[in-house]
Amino acid sequence: MDPAARGLADDAAVLPFGTETLVLTHDTLIQGVHVRPDEDPADVAWKLVAVNLSDLAAKGAAPLGVLVSHMLGEGDERFLAGLGEVLTAYDVPLLGGDTVRAAAAQQGPRSWGCTALGRATHTPVPDRRSARAGDGVFVTGTLGLAMRGLEDRGSGSAADRAYRRPEPLLAQGQALAPLVHAMMDVSDGLLLDCWRIAAASRCTIALDGAAIPVADPARRAECLRWGDDYQLLFTALPETALPVPATRIGTVTGAGTADLLLDGVTLQPTDGLGYQH
Amino acid sequence: MDPAARGLADDAAVLPFGTETLVLTHDTLIQGVHVRPDEDPADVAWKLVAVNLSDLAAKGAAPLGVLVSHMLGEGDERFLAGLGEVLTAYDVPLLGGDTVRAAAAQQGPRSWGCTALGRATHTPVPDRRSARAGDGVFVTGTLGLAMRGLEDRGSGSAADRAYRRPEPLLAQGQALAPLVHAMMDVSDGLLLDCWRIAAASRCTIALDGAAIPVADPARRAECLRWGDDYQLLFTALPETALPVPATRIGTVTGAGTADLLLDGVTLQPTDGLGYQH
Repeated sequence: MDPAARGLADDAAVLPFGTETLVLTHDTLIQGVHVRPDEDPADVAWKLVAVNLSDLAAKGAAPLGVLVSHMLGEGDERFLAGLGEVLTAYDVPLLGGDTVRAAAAQQGPRSWGCTALGRATHTPVPDRRSARAGDGVFVTGTLGLAMRGLEDRGSGSAADRAYRRPEPLLAQGQALAPLVHAMMDVSDGLLLDCWRIAAASRCTIALDGAAIPVADPARRAECLRWGDDYQLLFTALPETALPVPATRIGTVTGAGTADLLLDGVTLQPTDGLGYQH
Repeated sequence: MDPAARGLADDAAVLPFGTETLVLTHDTLIQGVHVRPDEDPADVAWKLVAVNLSDLAAKGAAPLGVLVSHMLGEGDERFLAGLGEVLTAYDVPLLGGDTVRAAAAQQGPRSWGCTALGRATHTPVPDRRSARAGDGVFVTGTLGLAMRGLEDRGSGSAADRAYRRPEPLLAQGQALAPLVHAMMDVSDGLLLDCWRIAAASRCTIALDGAAIPVADPARRAECLRWGDDYQLLFTALPETALPVPATRIGTVTGAGTADLLLDGVTLQPTDGLGYQH
């Protein structure tokens, strides 16, 4: 395993190259797992690219381009339309990729792959391992919006849009990169991702549940465990003047007996902290 | 479409980056299309990486690493074993990627994706568009060996190995890059790939059928159309002192009414020149 892979525990590979630093990430979406079978293919394409760009955002990287692997089938025109929309929205070049066709006799779940390549705008590149005792824990935006959007699909509401068309926080990630210690995007649930930072950094994260901005306070517990929000989760010195709106939700303490505390209660990844896959 | 994508007609994206030039390629293998259902997963992993490295070889690029997307299922241990073997054989770091699991209820063809990233060792990077009138057309190795290997699977013969464990010609590609005009790897059949160079270069390629080294002279026509050999096909000035063994198989002439002639007979891509996908 190359050190650039960071033990495959990080969201992206970081590779010094010439005078620059490259950031690479790959995600595959599978129908029935990451994508509902009745999803608009244009939304699938948007999400495919957006989740990879979100990984770049968490590294403070500026996108250089994407490679897209597309399994041909129903709705190809819609897929290409969505692909064009997301690439235009974030001004990201399509560098290549391939199209593949499964044999007609073997209909199964479709899958789509995307590799995103970026240029680090700040080194060292933020990772999950760099939270420090005394840091504040911060998150951008509101958690659980995509959860509500899934229940509200097609309404055109902000929640619907958050679910169907997640926005990678590229500008925010680049503004934060020089100021943060650890950073990642919240793709699998806030609690699980906080646990991952704590475990990778060998420290404890203590969260203040009431401080966490949620889309539905009556379902706070679900909002903290739902994925797909693609907000930025980071730790930084508490007094840091943050260049983007974010909410302080907790504190990093030294290594203790627990990785993650929510209102003083120890949580384990086996407690259903988020979406494990 | 970004110019780096070369109209998606090339095998790889070429991207100037800092003081260097990056080469990126992505290929997906689908069970039942590119991979037989009864293939040893270790051979699938080898082939997945090797075909991407072969695309880098045709660009004269030195591999920086690969990202691999693996759909979990039967034979995962064998897949990982084969992946380890090919990465070790070519000293290529695994930079990352992801593993995905299809829902159990949705068994269908599996797919595997690989993105390979390389550094150009020579610029301009060879492409399909640069054949020039007066060039000789050359190919390394023997065509049709993988075809014979498919019929001879499991025998341990050279043909069996050519089919199951194709060897990306990385050193050869790097040695040739400064000397050639057009270059590509033969993945879909020699005739089809010659036609592609001719069409992209807006010239005519005239092949001398008897000069083409084939694994089975009694089945010459098939050998010229079979894929999976991953030899390097290139054009260069006829008097070039070649640093690797290669056979001259034809000549590039100016644009004519035909893109490809075999022993004076015009061939069209619709004539079944190779594996179209």
